[in-house]
Amino acid sequence: MPTAIEPDQAPSSTLREPSGSEPQGIEVPRGLKGVVVTETALSDVRGIEGFYHYRQYSAIELAEQRSLEDVWHLMLLGELPDADARAAFHARTAPLRRLPEALRPLLPALAAATKDAGPLAGLGAALSIAAASRGIRPLYDTTPEQRVEDALFATALVPTLLTALHRLQQGQSPIEPREDLPYAANYLYMLTGHEPGWAQARAIERYLISTVDHGFNASTFTSRVIASTGADLVSCLVGGLGALSGPLHGGAPSRALDTLDAIGTPERIDGWIRDRVLSGDRIMGFGHPVYRTDDPRSRMLRTVAEGFGGELVDFAVEVERQVLAILAELKPGRELHTNVEFYAGVVMHLCGLPRAMFTPTFAAARAIGWSANILEQAADSKIIRPAARYTGPAAPQPVPPLA
Amino acid sequence: MPTAIEPDQAPSSTLREPSGSEPQGIEVPRGLKGVVVTETALSDVRGIEGFYHYRQYSAIELAEQRSLEDVWHLMLLGELPDADARAAFHARTAPLRRLPEALRPLLPALAAATKDAGPLAGLGAALSIAAASRGIRPLYDTTPEQRVEDALFATALVPTLLTALHRLQQGQSPIEPREDLPYAANYLYMLTGHEPGWAQARAIERYLISTVDHGFNASTFTSRVIASTGADLVSCLVGGLGALSGPLHGGAPSRALDTLDAIGTPERIDGWIRDRVLSGDRIMGFGHPVYRTDDPRSRMLRTVAEGFGGELVDFAVEVERQVLAILAELKPGRELHTNVEFYAGVVMHLCGLPRAMFTPTFAAARAIGWSANILEQAADSKIIRPAARYTGPAAPQPVPPLA
Repeated sequence: MPTAIEPDQAPSSTLREPSGSEPQGIEVPRGLKGVVVTETALSDVRGIEGFYHYRQYSAIELAEQRSLEDVWHLMLLGELPDADARAAFHARTAPLRRLPEALRPLLPALAAATKDAGPLAGLGAALSIAAASRGIRPLYDTTPEQRVEDALFATALVPTLLTALHRLQQGQSPIEPREDLPYAANYLYMLTGHEPGWAQARAIERYLISTVDHGFNASTFTSRVIASTGADLVSCLVGGLGALSGPLHGGAPSRALDTLDAIGTPERIDGWIRDRVLSGDRIMGFGHPVYRTDDPRSRMLRTVAEGFGGELVDFAVEVERQVLAILAELKPGRELHTNVEFYAGVVMHLCGLPRAMFTPTFAAARAIGWSANILEQAADSKIIRPAARYTGPAAPQPVPPLA
Repeated sequence: MPTAIEPDQAPSSTLREPSGSEPQGIEVPRGLKGVVVTETALSDVRGIEGFYHYRQYSAIELAEQRSLEDVWHLMLLGELPDADARAAFHARTAPLRRLPEALRPLLPALAAATKDAGPLAGLGAALSIAAASRGIRPLYDTTPEQRVEDALFATALVPTLLTALHRLQQGQSPIEPREDLPYAANYLYMLTGHEPGWAQARAIERYLISTVDHGFNASTFTSRVIASTGADLVSCLVGGLGALSGPLHGGAPSRALDTLDAIGTPERIDGWIRDRVLSGDRIMGFGHPVYRTDDPRSRMLRTVAEGFGGELVDFAVEVERQVLAILAELKPGRELHTNVEFYAGVVMHLCGLPRAMFTPTFAAARAIGWSANILEQAADSKIIRPAARYTGPAAPQPVPPLA
């Protein structure tokens, strides 16, 4: 087992210079805000413009014009595929959807143990087991080609694991993946057992594409810190999943839908929202720490929702209109715009996803972004290891005798 | 499920200021070397002095004078216990060693799936399942008291999980924990089924204490990044385990023991070591990025080993003597001293631990340090979210038409 013992120590080596001369005590803003940890060619968010991109392409344009597989190919392999590369990529990834045999006997008990917490709580464990049974190697010991293979293996498997866990948690049998379907359509198929309509599959695909990556957020950073130790790719993904589960990391699209439910009817919107804003409560789905405009994902998802139409969409549009008006009135100058969360839940609901699968669906998309970040980090040999300042009582003080 | 959707976004709130004015592009050394991420009252390493401490006490003095439970109490609760507090702490933690019922049906299949990778590969999954089945809550939603409870739960369970996984992987049945024994003695007991001798139990306890924490290494940092998102404590620990598994994170005490095996006999030492040093290979167990002296853990573990005596210890001492002489001759001025890895493997071997359990044993101790760091981080509401500089092709470029 090539695992590590001494977390503060690079591999001991007669070639290593002692580094007592390393820089110490560099002061930066709390939470490393604005501190440039690395360079990346993968993505960027321009908050003031309301624009974000994957490599050199607008993420929203990609969501409108390309398949998830095309974007996956772009992120992992560096370029959009042509027709031949697209076919080869499908042929390469579709078989990776199959549940590894080592996992089959474990999944029912795993689903049962994580039933209350939902499919995402079992995903990390399932991925770790799949990786171990496959004999995944540390990034440190693998070639770039093998790392791509590991990334495809893990990210292709995520939808299978999530839908299987969800179905087992609902008392249903998992559904084997269909290799003839695209990623998004197969995802909905494994959830329901029915081939989805084109509109649903395409809507969820646009959502997935739009959430593959989004700047250097805490989960992406976590994945990259772990990758910087040379650990295996799935250990990095599992760390990212852990960070993603943190409430300070962001929202949850089910919350915005819950808000729509709680408001209930159009005539209640004004009073409900005013009460919340005046008592200082959050209105889920509004406000974003980076964007000073509408979140571009929100605009796109609203268009997707309006393509479906119906009572829920009309209601959501009306809630959005009134919330923005009330916020402009009661919180002038705050630039509180609609964020991705508001319409994401509406779109997922319209595609037939149950609320328990909203955050897992986001995680499935983001796993693709994490894996691209992990591979980029793996090409850098420098471990990410900052410092802390000790501020406790002066040491050493004598250890008191046993009382 | 209170999990998150938008990794780059704190919970949306009508109270949140837009922060397009956040600092951007602060340049720091690669890998955040020397960059102060946080203040800590938990521990520090003084490399030039060859000294490290837990809170205000020398870690080595603690290892010499106290039990693992005392140090666990110190790290988690802030002070060394008196006799009453010690008894209460044992009464509180010993029952937490019991395997949760939800895990029992899963462990054999989990052990089988991770057999080739060893017990550590199954630990994260087992902990996640235990946490989910217990209904662990995000740090963000828990009181400090509940966080301590969660930390004790997870870290008390680690030895049970590791020994059970190891025994199952060896085709043996797991052994139920003994609540009457101290942590270290129970650990060895669960591994072998025999109550260990005092010397073995005390030796492994000293090793465990000496590796509970060691500065702001990459796995500790990983745990704290995940904690800063408000995720649950076990998600933070699992991230730390992932980082610990990275080869760039450090050594593996089995490697140094493998080196002793490879050298074989005293008369082969000189030639074997010279060959390796002259061909630029690493000599496992020597050199450390922080210490400019002997690693203080190495000195203590040598004393522990010499307390056992015997052929292996004599051989190790002779290898160390010759390696240091050859390094001083061939790499003058490099200050390459013996690190923790060199005698750790010898001590664990003398205590009856198989090599497959060396790194897992280290992880069990370090889980205590991580959990203390996680609780300290949880008291800070600021998410750790640095930045990256986009250096890819200028964006946006138009998405090419489908080929």
